[in-house]
Amino acid sequence: MSKKIKIFSPATVANVACGFDVMGFALNSPGDEVSMEKNASGKIILQDDTPYGLPLEPEKNATAVALQSMLDAIRSRQGFTVTFLKKIMPGSGVGSSAASSAAGVFGANELLGRPYTRKELVQFAMQGEKAASGSAHADNVAPALMGGFTLVRSYSPLDVIPVPSPEIYATVIHPQIEVRTSDSRKILRQEVPIKKAVEQWGNVAGLVAGLFTNDYDLIGRSLHDVIVEPVRALLIPEFYTIKQAALDAGALGCSISGSGPSIFALSRNEKIAQKVAQAMQDGFNKVGIENHVFVSQINKEGVRIVG
Amino acid sequence: MSKKIKIFSPATVANVACGFDVMGFALNSPGDEVSMEKNASGKIILQDDTPYGLPLEPEKNATAVALQSMLDAIRSRQGFTVTFLKKIMPGSGVGSSAASSAAGVFGANELLGRPYTRKELVQFAMQGEKAASGSAHADNVAPALMGGFTLVRSYSPLDVIPVPSPEIYATVIHPQIEVRTSDSRKILRQEVPIKKAVEQWGNVAGLVAGLFTNDYDLIGRSLHDVIVEPVRALLIPEFYTIKQAALDAGALGCSISGSGPSIFALSRNEKIAQKVAQAMQDGFNKVGIENHVFVSQINKEGVRIVG
Repeated sequence: MSKKIKIFSPATVANVACGFDVMGFALNSPGDEVSMEKNASGKIILQDDTPYGLPLEPEKNATAVALQSMLDAIRSRQGFTVTFLKKIMPGSGVGSSAASSAAGVFGANELLGRPYTRKELVQFAMQGEKAASGSAHADNVAPALMGGFTLVRSYSPLDVIPVPSPEIYATVIHPQIEVRTSDSRKILRQEVPIKKAVEQWGNVAGLVAGLFTNDYDLIGRSLHDVIVEPVRALLIPEFYTIKQAALDAGALGCSISGSGPSIFALSRNEKIAQKVAQAMQDGFNKVGIENHVFVSQINKEGVRIVG
Repeated sequence: MSKKIKIFSPATVANVACGFDVMGFALNSPGDEVSMEKNASGKIILQDDTPYGLPLEPEKNATAVALQSMLDAIRSRQGFTVTFLKKIMPGSGVGSSAASSAAGVFGANELLGRPYTRKELVQFAMQGEKAASGSAHADNVAPALMGGFTLVRSYSPLDVIPVPSPEIYATVIHPQIEVRTSDSRKILRQEVPIKKAVEQWGNVAGLVAGLFTNDYDLIGRSLHDVIVEPVRALLIPEFYTIKQAALDAGALGCSISGSGPSIFALSRNEKIAQKVAQAMQDGFNKVGIENHVFVSQINKEGVRIVG
């Protein structure tokens, strides 16, 4: 089989306010585009058609690391050629490395006749995250692979739960400032007050209940992060101004996307989500911080073949 | 109206392993039985037909405190006579004071023509909890009033969310040892490792998802408490032996009921729940700890009029 496939792999928002390290959701755009085909070399060959100068040594590239871990698991020596066509801007906080990792394992799985389910692919894509950020998180790769909202209930053993959602729109704004995931992890406290932890798990449980019952108000009431946001907000200039602007414009909730610097908001329809986008953008523009904003429905399907 | 009503108010299991201070569920039995009627004195008069020697000064009695807070809210000077007929054993860890508080506010609400919904009554019943244990918790009074599983998403403002559940059976064993709620709170750490907190909120979210989807396996996988149980287990002799016996007998999960000393297990059907009861009882009997065990389906209705 010398079929060449083109894959779209979605950006994702991890943490979702109250769900630090466990919740995430996928977006319709932006996303990575990657083409993949088998090759006869027995090696993973990487090609970069993006403007980002991606690392192309297999051991430093999230896609290759993820793909290799899957090939190791099925004891395959199949070679693959992966060409990066479009890339979510690295470091934006919307799961750029997760999208690449998901694309790699999904594409290989398709080309090998689907030995694994999407859920099973999460464990391999996580290895790409480890290569990219130093820790094998699943809160971005799970929604990238499975679509929608996902809950990583447990890491050992890995237990990923899809959570249904009503029609809901995300607004994500990416201010052009750099926050390194490793830095944004370092500043977190290793111990948290139990009172705050209880508030947090009340909200995570509320968010899941709200998603199951299509209860927008409950979703909104649950989108609070009393543990991580107060610390990471320090790394994002104007965070609270932008958040307030989003809420004033009608967003259900607003918090940091993953480890930042992107900020996300959720809204009950596209019209509000666009209004929220404008309000967030105005906030950054006022202080001269360059930014990109995008509005997207939740992507329910996850990574997919587009050609 | 000089109608006299008889009320059944259910025992409840708070915390439900992973949901410290936020989750709870109601049982069909045991429960409190209380009769209530209006009186013309403008006072709350308490009578005790139970063998427990309940405190009958209104300011020290959970039922009276809860009832008075509701009367204050509607600026009513109506007097009520409350007779305690049957009582869950105080200090057993299955919401004895919550059942009394719920009975008081529910009964008065019925006799006054239902000015409040069951959910609205939670705020008043909490005041009874405060009188009984020093803190105004809602994780027992919410399921006692509303039935089923409940989530207390937030205390300020109070936000109680009913969570549907599949057919599920609880086994609760009460070893005849005394654990005071105030003691069992004192030994909790005020700070917890963030890693454990993340595990816990993954599990709470998983439990809610499992209850919504009737996924017994997910419910079972989520019934882990990595924060409170390891500390409170120290106050309950043989806790881990009993827990293991329950799991070996087929329980989905097992943990401490509220602040203990009762231990609860959940099972997918009554046959397993009975087997679990036997196994738990054998465990305590072997070491000569007197105990009572009961098996009950989840009570979906909550406190109700029975005569």
